[in-house]
Amino acid sequence: MPKPRLFAPGPTPIPPRVQAAMAGPIVYHRGPDFPDLLQGVVRGLKATFPTPHDCFVLSSSGSGAMEAALVNICSPDDPVVVVQAGQFGAKWTALCKAYGLPTDIIDLPWGNAFDPKAVADRVRPETRAVFVTQSETSTGVLHDVEALGKELTNTDVLLVVDGVSSVVAHPLPTAEWGVDMAVTASQKGLMVPPGIGIITVSPKAWEAVERARLPRFYFDLNTYKDAFQEGRGPATLPVTLLRGLKIALDMIAEEGLEAVWNRHARHAEAVRQATIALGLSVFAESPSNVLTAISLPEAVDGLALMDRLRSHHGITVGGGLAHLRGRLIRISNLGYVDDTDILTVLSALEQSLRALKWTFQPGAGVGAAEGVLGAEI
Amino acid sequence: MPKPRLFAPGPTPIPPRVQAAMAGPIVYHRGPDFPDLLQGVVRGLKATFPTPHDCFVLSSSGSGAMEAALVNICSPDDPVVVVQAGQFGAKWTALCKAYGLPTDIIDLPWGNAFDPKAVADRVRPETRAVFVTQSETSTGVLHDVEALGKELTNTDVLLVVDGVSSVVAHPLPTAEWGVDMAVTASQKGLMVPPGIGIITVSPKAWEAVERARLPRFYFDLNTYKDAFQEGRGPATLPVTLLRGLKIALDMIAEEGLEAVWNRHARHAEAVRQATIALGLSVFAESPSNVLTAISLPEAVDGLALMDRLRSHHGITVGGGLAHLRGRLIRISNLGYVDDTDILTVLSALEQSLRALKWTFQPGAGVGAAEGVLGAEI
Repeated sequence: MPKPRLFAPGPTPIPPRVQAAMAGPIVYHRGPDFPDLLQGVVRGLKATFPTPHDCFVLSSSGSGAMEAALVNICSPDDPVVVVQAGQFGAKWTALCKAYGLPTDIIDLPWGNAFDPKAVADRVRPETRAVFVTQSETSTGVLHDVEALGKELTNTDVLLVVDGVSSVVAHPLPTAEWGVDMAVTASQKGLMVPPGIGIITVSPKAWEAVERARLPRFYFDLNTYKDAFQEGRGPATLPVTLLRGLKIALDMIAEEGLEAVWNRHARHAEAVRQATIALGLSVFAESPSNVLTAISLPEAVDGLALMDRLRSHHGITVGGGLAHLRGRLIRISNLGYVDDTDILTVLSALEQSLRALKWTFQPGAGVGAAEGVLGAEI
Repeated sequence: MPKPRLFAPGPTPIPPRVQAAMAGPIVYHRGPDFPDLLQGVVRGLKATFPTPHDCFVLSSSGSGAMEAALVNICSPDDPVVVVQAGQFGAKWTALCKAYGLPTDIIDLPWGNAFDPKAVADRVRPETRAVFVTQSETSTGVLHDVEALGKELTNTDVLLVVDGVSSVVAHPLPTAEWGVDMAVTASQKGLMVPPGIGIITVSPKAWEAVERARLPRFYFDLNTYKDAFQEGRGPATLPVTLLRGLKIALDMIAEEGLEAVWNRHARHAEAVRQATIALGLSVFAESPSNVLTAISLPEAVDGLALMDRLRSHHGITVGGGLAHLRGRLIRISNLGYVDDTDILTVLSALEQSLRALKWTFQPGAGVGAAEGVLGAEI
């Protein structure tokens, strides 16, 4: 009976300290201890993006935080630009269309990264916002948000970034990079179960909030601003998850943000080098440190590979989404994952590939990963 | 150092079995085990309302589920009727106004229950929906949803009920009573931490969903319908909370729904009888079995009473909201609360009232409660 081992790009494995914090007695959200908890969480989140902007936690998934971004800055018929180069970029498109906004879609092949200049060229004087994804989880691509922010300097457009999977794995310094709203969620790099959406709001975005006329209530950031000043949510917040998040943020601070980013970089590089050493290839043209999408050869069925990883090793990885179903596996190194876990998933991958008749020098992948990780373990 | 004891009307105390279920390894929401979990939760929820209608879980608070109800059945300028007789009724008003709907507000004094016939009289042929609250948590009033449903039989209007605090404590048989949408949340009678919103949808409500033109994405019930048929959420659902909810629903089924309703009735009656025996009065004209709002005499400051309960007994109760701040305390019997807990909170209440110089026969409140509970403990 193999142990469960989670290498999916969210929800991710949870540290025992976070689990323990969530198992404590229920916190009353109107009680005297709650403001300290909430303010500690907000402080920790701001340190982690990092951002000096206002930051709020919502009782929602990351998709809810994406909706919160859109409805708070747009009015009916505001033109917007979206980049879609995978399933999560396409979510921005679906969201903009659901709200009836004239949407200029930059539709790139899955696996590609956007050209920041080409995106900026699509912005017109009347464009309200550009919606992009930092790490596209369906393809493993890292988009260059910093460069896009530079291109958009001195324009009126708002830059809104889906950082759901990227925050913690990569820096997203919103003020430095000109990001007006960034969204993320608890169940990725933050090592907490799903149920908390997170959003940052720049001063420029607040001006847009004042003018925006799309209807909103649950996600109305003005109600969040007022309530958070008193250390409360406008409605009941997920108190147990917040307790877990506080501890996870403490752990990130203890490890040190640079060390955390470096850990994700080393883990992802180890998986990439192992991929190549096994005769496979990395799908993304500009790979993120969140996860590695591995292109499989015709001879290897991705669904059979995932089944084998699960049945023999207890390992869950992400599969290929939409038209890539069965053609990719996605190995995530997000969450409570250490160097030894990376060697574990790679050795199980080797055994499973061999069972499916893919040939390579046994140990080649693990060896390549050890080469990346070795000096620092 | 007193132990923490929670008697607030949500979040409520959590059973150890639910805590243990939430502390298990993270469930992957695209994994092979997830559909069973989700379908088990939906089955359990339908048994609990009880309802034969479709039922969905959302990653949101109860307020999010309220918004989901409204945006899925209304178009811009649809006239609606709301009953507000407390803070949670007023939330319907705020929600309808945020969406710009012409809103006919039946504004009753806090503590009153609506007259079903008077509410039905406000419905015109063009009225899209009537929004009401079953148990108004700010006042402890139970509104008669069954009678209102009867009054609205053979009309086209949709009846939408906030059952956030009432479900589990009181029956809300949506089909029998003509309720088209009912919403609730995890952190009340369901004995799970906050973070899950719940909504039921009648066939008549589905017809409205097809025609409704308010913009919606995150809360679009069509996407929930499609995804749930495959045992998935349209976005990441709060998997750990769902595991807890599955166990809580199992526990409710094991106790038996009639026994659960009866338990809430006995506990609330014990608190009401104790209230009277202590020379105090129940605030609500038609009290709910969710919680008891106790009116305090001029001589007793509610905030001082709450401080004393907390500092000497570790007890958290609800306070008076808005203009009732300091004038009420609200003792909830929702969640993982047994007969002995009721005697505990009442004996602590006696001690605290005496410390604040309120005079009564010591033991009178506990004795009255024992009279209610005695035969059945």
